[in-house]
Amino acid sequence: MRTHAENAELALLLEVAGTPKPGNVDRHRDHDDLRFEHFLAGAVGSARGLRLAEEGPVGEAFETAIEGMSEQEGGNTQFGCLLLLVPLVRAAARGGLSPAGVTEVVEATTVADAAGFYRAFEHVDVAVSDPPEELDALDVRRGSDAVPTLEARGLSLHDIMELSADRDDNGREWVRGFPRTFTAAAWILDDEGPAPDRAARAFLRLLAERPDTFVAIQRDRATAERASERAQAALDGDIAVEELADEFVAAGINPGTTADITAAALFVALERGLAV
Amino acid sequence: MRTHAENAELALLLEVAGTPKPGNVDRHRDHDDLRFEHFLAGAVGSARGLRLAEEGPVGEAFETAIEGMSEQEGGNTQFGCLLLLVPLVRAAARGGLSPAGVTEVVEATTVADAAGFYRAFEHVDVAVSDPPEELDALDVRRGSDAVPTLEARGLSLHDIMELSADRDDNGREWVRGFPRTFTAAAWILDDEGPAPDRAARAFLRLLAERPDTFVAIQRDRATAERASERAQAALDGDIAVEELADEFVAAGINPGTTADITAAALFVALERGLAV
Repeated sequence: MRTHAENAELALLLEVAGTPKPGNVDRHRDHDDLRFEHFLAGAVGSARGLRLAEEGPVGEAFETAIEGMSEQEGGNTQFGCLLLLVPLVRAAARGGLSPAGVTEVVEATTVADAAGFYRAFEHVDVAVSDPPEELDALDVRRGSDAVPTLEARGLSLHDIMELSADRDDNGREWVRGFPRTFTAAAWILDDEGPAPDRAARAFLRLLAERPDTFVAIQRDRATAERASERAQAALDGDIAVEELADEFVAAGINPGTTADITAAALFVALERGLAV
Repeated sequence: MRTHAENAELALLLEVAGTPKPGNVDRHRDHDDLRFEHFLAGAVGSARGLRLAEEGPVGEAFETAIEGMSEQEGGNTQFGCLLLLVPLVRAAARGGLSPAGVTEVVEATTVADAAGFYRAFEHVDVAVSDPPEELDALDVRRGSDAVPTLEARGLSLHDIMELSADRDDNGREWVRGFPRTFTAAAWILDDEGPAPDRAARAFLRLLAERPDTFVAIQRDRATAERASERAQAALDGDIAVEELADEFVAAGINPGTTADITAAALFVALERGLAV
């Protein structure tokens, strides 16, 4: 039987293999400087951190996973995926892979976990939004320079996620019991056919349901909303998904948060018996 | 930096991602019951055994790798790849990833290593040829039932590979210092472009150079020789590689040994600095 860490690594691989996932690198599409093999190497490299997540502190496991993920030339491949996967692996290892179980894990995070999260930003460039002015000292791009502020204010990693939850749906997953992760896992388990195909369909439903916060950060809110309308049009059969994929690539729309949640959902589905 | 075991796992993933690799599952092609995601899961599952190979006996590491590889529904995905990778990982961990270094590793194998190899066949169905009549007691399909014979005759895993070296090119690699593995690694390092594209080109050159012994076992020697002539025609530009891929799929030709050596060559290339 695969371990929890192995299921998480496989979830990363199945996510990138699923096609078409409009706007993202997948089995059939590369971006210019970010290619399929960078995601393969990112998944392999993150495995060390995922194994740590079975046993110990979320922040250290996350930083280790990001350090390993970064050992390839594509840059940020799976930062957001791992932010969701690490507490889910921890919850699974503790026997509580449920909204309540993962909430226990994230609520137990400490200032040290927050410091690990900040240090992870020193391993790779991640596209983030500017924080509100009063939170400037906590800008994640400060990396470990922000640690004294975290310590002075006694902020846990859960506190940090809470601060970003209104503009980053990965933060929102963290502080609300991973609602979309568990919902999409149920879709994947109820679906039929090969796991990567199920992942691609879950991705499209997630995108249609809620604007992608990575698109909103990289571009703007209106573009993110329009992308979700187009995903709904694809679900309604008004545009072929393959055509939408070409449209998003041409427009530079990359729904990264939706891919993160898809990977997290694949992990939950694998843990609950999704066969590969 | 990736560990040796991680480089081996990545080599498995890059091998299956390389396309077109005529006749094999690759980034663009699935077989009916053997799909891309089975190779992803096979690679993830084999990592435990690859980590063991860094530290200890080849036979136990190989059996562990095959047991993990088999935890997916596609059947045999990477048995031959792992037979080559395990001693190469061991040699790399000992600081001797060279023909001489890996020869030291395989020549040091014991009866216990041979027993591990036989037990590996209990985890997955592998297409093998019937052994000569006098070797019937050593038919690998006997699994652990052959162990008393191994012990009575004092046969090491190297001895077993020697017995199959004239009909299985993986055995030939073992007992001759992995000549094609190191040659193809040099091709990959001298080549340009993304690693999976280099792998696909190395695969074609390997196939043109020598008939694939898996095709010879599954079909017959004449079919294997004809497949190599067709690969040479593709290298000469007389047929497009994509067209050859369709031709092989239609004819049920699956050059598995060539894929095994390609994966082994990718590992050596990664260890020697191939960037991903």
